[in-house]
Amino acid sequence: MSELINETLQKIEPLDQTAMHAARQRQQMLTKPPGSLGRLEELSIKLAGMQSKAMPQVERKVIVVMAADHGVVVEGVSAYPSEVTPQMVGNFLNGGAAINVFARQVGATVLVVDMGVAAELPAQPDLLSRKVAFGTANMAIGPAMTLEQARQAVETGIRIAEELAGTVDLIGTGDMGIGNTTASSAIVAAFLGAEVASVTGRGTGVDDEGLRRKIAVIRRALEINQPDPANPLEVLAKVGGFEIAGLVGLIFGAAAHRIPVVVDGFISSAAALVATEWQPSVRDYLIAAHNSVEIGHRVMLERMELQPLLNLDLRLGEGTGAALAMHVVEAAVRALAEMATFAEAGVSDGQTEKVK
Amino acid sequence: MSELINETLQKIEPLDQTAMHAARQRQQMLTKPPGSLGRLEELSIKLAGMQSKAMPQVERKVIVVMAADHGVVVEGVSAYPSEVTPQMVGNFLNGGAAINVFARQVGATVLVVDMGVAAELPAQPDLLSRKVAFGTANMAIGPAMTLEQARQAVETGIRIAEELAGTVDLIGTGDMGIGNTTASSAIVAAFLGAEVASVTGRGTGVDDEGLRRKIAVIRRALEINQPDPANPLEVLAKVGGFEIAGLVGLIFGAAAHRIPVVVDGFISSAAALVATEWQPSVRDYLIAAHNSVEIGHRVMLERMELQPLLNLDLRLGEGTGAALAMHVVEAAVRALAEMATFAEAGVSDGQTEKVK
Repeated sequence: MSELINETLQKIEPLDQTAMHAARQRQQMLTKPPGSLGRLEELSIKLAGMQSKAMPQVERKVIVVMAADHGVVVEGVSAYPSEVTPQMVGNFLNGGAAINVFARQVGATVLVVDMGVAAELPAQPDLLSRKVAFGTANMAIGPAMTLEQARQAVETGIRIAEELAGTVDLIGTGDMGIGNTTASSAIVAAFLGAEVASVTGRGTGVDDEGLRRKIAVIRRALEINQPDPANPLEVLAKVGGFEIAGLVGLIFGAAAHRIPVVVDGFISSAAALVATEWQPSVRDYLIAAHNSVEIGHRVMLERMELQPLLNLDLRLGEGTGAALAMHVVEAAVRALAEMATFAEAGVSDGQTEKVK
Repeated sequence: MSELINETLQKIEPLDQTAMHAARQRQQMLTKPPGSLGRLEELSIKLAGMQSKAMPQVERKVIVVMAADHGVVVEGVSAYPSEVTPQMVGNFLNGGAAINVFARQVGATVLVVDMGVAAELPAQPDLLSRKVAFGTANMAIGPAMTLEQARQAVETGIRIAEELAGTVDLIGTGDMGIGNTTASSAIVAAFLGAEVASVTGRGTGVDDEGLRRKIAVIRRALEINQPDPANPLEVLAKVGGFEIAGLVGLIFGAAAHRIPVVVDGFISSAAALVATEWQPSVRDYLIAAHNSVEIGHRVMLERMELQPLLNLDLRLGEGTGAALAMHVVEAAVRALAEMATFAEAGVSDGQTEKVK
């Protein structure tokens, strides 16, 4: 289908068991009861496997926020108008959004990518302009994009990951796009065969009538487009979004370069779902950041067998949950690297009488 | 009972509703759908009420790790010998323990207090020496300490909080003491009338036989001592520990000075339980860091109506969960302070057509 996509998928390797074994061994020697750091211990071992390093590193962190618009917004599926997408991109570039705050706090940079915002965005050094089109078409009356556009968006994501490889240790995903919970719910329903109402939430906050309308619109989009779950690129084209397709490529590219990906909430997980349905081995490189309020999120995480690190009732997107979770990821790595061993600290390990 | 304790309890004021109102108003103006930051929004508002500031601050953070030994260890209730307590205190002072790693990461200092370690600890600038005794007596055959010792330990905690007041914005609790899950389970059982087996876990990792022995020892301690739940100081004296009593005082002193307290796991929550049973209004100043693996933890949090921020299967203590949760607390405060408003960013708030 695409040489770049195929090559990238072929590059994805399984977790490095040798590095994982070394990390697991070290965890047993650190000054704490074995297993007492719970999920942080598991995480440090998994990161070792991803990076193929007994001592994984996550100092250089980036949140890639992909933005795009959705033609389906004309159906009245969102509490906000499409013009908010470019406005929020401006807010990201000025450092005033929640993602900027949380990224600064955790020491991550924010890379904003225009994947398909429905407005001319003035050129700016911090903005990657990769616009596929001025927003998708309305999926309620036909495919959101062409197969060629979907392919282009995925390839764009791969190329961004390739450009980042070597300069970053950890990638977080983020999204901005009024209407993109509608696309994400459609994607979940398409892959899982779930009843639309069971995977559709209020997004940025539609009322009861808006929610009913949103559910009806997604049903119509699925009926008209009939996306084939065996063909993920087609699902993306028919009911996806440019930012979602871009994130699919970003995940592929990151996994091919052994870069762990912290997957944000509902929209990012929809991208992760497309990626894992397309190429199950990519799952090894994913860390679920948090459990979103959006009702369709849980079923996606279950399907991918990912357990989220945080549960803070977030539903903002932008990569905010990923940025917050990066602190936990970094804590896992730091504990492995910086804690003293029983022998170093002269602490009895409970097995022998006293170590020194 | 004690003038210092009574005066401190009388100083504890309710949350400042005016500051909370101002913080709540500001949350509505920030560039995000209202409520989309979930528990972070609630937390920022509660912190405003605690600190009596519309813009709460948590820059200056300290984890107070109180250490003490437990006479009950002779009954074989722990996987580690008592000598590990002073060894780990040494590890804290050398910066090699998990709490040091997580505190460094979040920018918190670690204050180690010897409340009653059963060993002479060499004087060190970073160690507060407040030893009440060389460990408690064995609560399986009589009271762990005298009422006078319990009072002294609580007062010590209050004085430490008073010394910190004005120089710290946020206090985290931490503990070290081989045998202290045994004391904590006894405290929970005493206050809640819970069956001992339902609130007793494996602590640092006893095996099945060790767990049975631990449960039997706690039952015996409660039967012999008959602690009266209506008299929290007596409960502390009969089945508590010096570090637990010190943390009770620390919580009282912090609340009296409007300093929010991030309560770590099982041991710290046992201290928080004593504090809230003693003076329910102290609850307003508590933030539950995480949900421990110890089975008695959940019932304590429910009794205090506290919802933990993290759930990472930790069971280490030392204040590790508190240090990790401080990142979330800081994120809540930073979002409130640093995010742009709709008007500042020129973003449509979904109510009006466009703000500017």
